[in-house]
Amino acid sequence: MAVIARIAAVQKELRSLDIPAVLITNLSDVRYLSGFTGTTAYMLIDLEKAVFFTDGRYSIQAAEEVSENIVVEIVKDYSSIYTERCSVFKKILLQPSCSINVSSKIASHGVEIYLDEKDFMQKLRMVKDSSEISLIKEQYNLAGKAFLRALKSFKYDTSEKSWAAALEYHMKMLGAKGESFETIVASGVRGAMPHGTASAKKINENEPVIIDFGSRDIYTSDYTRMIYAGNNEEVLKVIDIVRVSLEKAVESIAEGIMCSDVDKAARSYIEEQGYGAYFNHSLGHGVGIDVHELPVLKPKSDFLIEDNMIFTIEPGIYLPEKFGVRLEQTVLINNGKAEIISSALDKYVYSITE
Amino acid sequence: MAVIARIAAVQKELRSLDIPAVLITNLSDVRYLSGFTGTTAYMLIDLEKAVFFTDGRYSIQAAEEVSENIVVEIVKDYSSIYTERCSVFKKILLQPSCSINVSSKIASHGVEIYLDEKDFMQKLRMVKDSSEISLIKEQYNLAGKAFLRALKSFKYDTSEKSWAAALEYHMKMLGAKGESFETIVASGVRGAMPHGTASAKKINENEPVIIDFGSRDIYTSDYTRMIYAGNNEEVLKVIDIVRVSLEKAVESIAEGIMCSDVDKAARSYIEEQGYGAYFNHSLGHGVGIDVHELPVLKPKSDFLIEDNMIFTIEPGIYLPEKFGVRLEQTVLINNGKAEIISSALDKYVYSITE
Repeated sequence: MAVIARIAAVQKELRSLDIPAVLITNLSDVRYLSGFTGTTAYMLIDLEKAVFFTDGRYSIQAAEEVSENIVVEIVKDYSSIYTERCSVFKKILLQPSCSINVSSKIASHGVEIYLDEKDFMQKLRMVKDSSEISLIKEQYNLAGKAFLRALKSFKYDTSEKSWAAALEYHMKMLGAKGESFETIVASGVRGAMPHGTASAKKINENEPVIIDFGSRDIYTSDYTRMIYAGNNEEVLKVIDIVRVSLEKAVESIAEGIMCSDVDKAARSYIEEQGYGAYFNHSLGHGVGIDVHELPVLKPKSDFLIEDNMIFTIEPGIYLPEKFGVRLEQTVLINNGKAEIISSALDKYVYSITE
Repeated sequence: MAVIARIAAVQKELRSLDIPAVLITNLSDVRYLSGFTGTTAYMLIDLEKAVFFTDGRYSIQAAEEVSENIVVEIVKDYSSIYTERCSVFKKILLQPSCSINVSSKIASHGVEIYLDEKDFMQKLRMVKDSSEISLIKEQYNLAGKAFLRALKSFKYDTSEKSWAAALEYHMKMLGAKGESFETIVASGVRGAMPHGTASAKKINENEPVIIDFGSRDIYTSDYTRMIYAGNNEEVLKVIDIVRVSLEKAVESIAEGIMCSDVDKAARSYIEEQGYGAYFNHSLGHGVGIDVHELPVLKPKSDFLIEDNMIFTIEPGIYLPEKFGVRLEQTVLINNGKAEIISSALDKYVYSITE
């Protein structure tokens, strides 16, 4: 879908809501609708046109990046958007993430505010077009390659942080703008923290290590893999339970089922094995411009599986004061079936003795 | 100021506003008030206590990090904060950055919303205590050291991105969690973009290069330095104008003057030299947990200079289709005078032939 079609979709939504304009304040949505990659910009879209606002720091970049169907304006003071531009409308749609600071300024100019409770932009972005799919696959290939490069320099008795730095360096040298989130390298007991970002802790020989990482350009990627060379029975058993749970979730995917069904396929297996209490997060999330997008895969998620959704499946078991296990694949829904796009890393668990 | 004193300052503000509670939704403010470094958490502070909310992914981390004077609660669903916890109050104070999604949920439970237009948390954080000052200085020393290490591997005819990757790698190996913002490496004509983040462009011999970067742990740092080994008269002249402008701003700092006066000291010199139209951004900003904090240094900034503020001074001149120059120091206000804390890099311009 070209930018022009995306803006048309926004205008269609405005017509169906009978609201003359929407102020896009979410930066990822601005990026999706305009192509702009800077850090400060807004868009005001009405039934006839789309206007893009940024400040003088970005005038050259906006001229280069923003689609030609969009009017670009350089503002000195963003408050002019609220005081002059929005106030020509009687009603305006605002996004759920819009700040109350912005909404109160607009409201103070007599404009009636409508909160987009459904967050239609998130739903628009949930189903990817072919150009998005190829950009996302590119990031998955890049991040996978970087992991394999970094694996060559993996050493026990060095810090989680230093290996994370190497992994991130390789992602950038392969062309990534940066990480899609703070890299998690959680070894030994730290593995029991699902979000244990890389610390100064040294990785001891034969400890299980969870690595959750991703690269970012305009689109993102997200992988979880483990490093484990030990033979502790409980660790191996838990890895196997998580692996089977992940595979059951992938296999469960079919047209017409709900995201909660996929969550259930993974979660009920972990529960049957007696570890239900130790899987304390959602099963997965959409991936796109943001590394956390719709759909959400969790027990009460009523999103229907649709073609061209891309989302992660990442069950985990976290045993406090012992260790943790999480494995992750990302799938593209292709003719109602799951196509794994995270296969640049074809193992779940890497043993550095190999 | 220990966490307990910070919470007392919040409660004092509540009393002066005659509002029984505030919901802290800004993550950096949560960090400031609790010590927590994860990515999702809220705090509800009333006149008697401070309650911290996060989800199961962070239960171990919260137990380790959150100050013991704060009640920690692990929530399954954040909406319970709005529906149960906030609704026991008749009135509640919300931060300007709070989303309209959150505010409308609270309001729908009959709670009267007060928007903290002054953003008192930003003002509280503007003046640093001694532990903050030492953590910020630590980041400046670390980032400066990383720059000097990366300089050793600087090569012409390689991409801006690859050198940025090396600089970021060294920051992490020296202990940083990551970058405080996307590293800017803008060479040649790209230097005319004040926010020209590192691209695939190769750096040509003797082009001027602007590098704007910083490291981040709990606190941040922010440097701009240049690499230039050429002898183009205009480039050298513009570098000199920007340098003098920066030094005039630093010298102007004295107790009782306003941030706009500091901006004026720099800006009027650039204007006198005939380049006023090419300095199209603010002079500087506070640095702390966020790399952009109060005070703002710009023409209409009425913040008074106060002891223990830390802020950048970073004038620039950007000549479209030619080149750009920006230089930056960070100062701590110490007995009414500017103490430069970015002196780990004691030159403005580095020549890689040295």
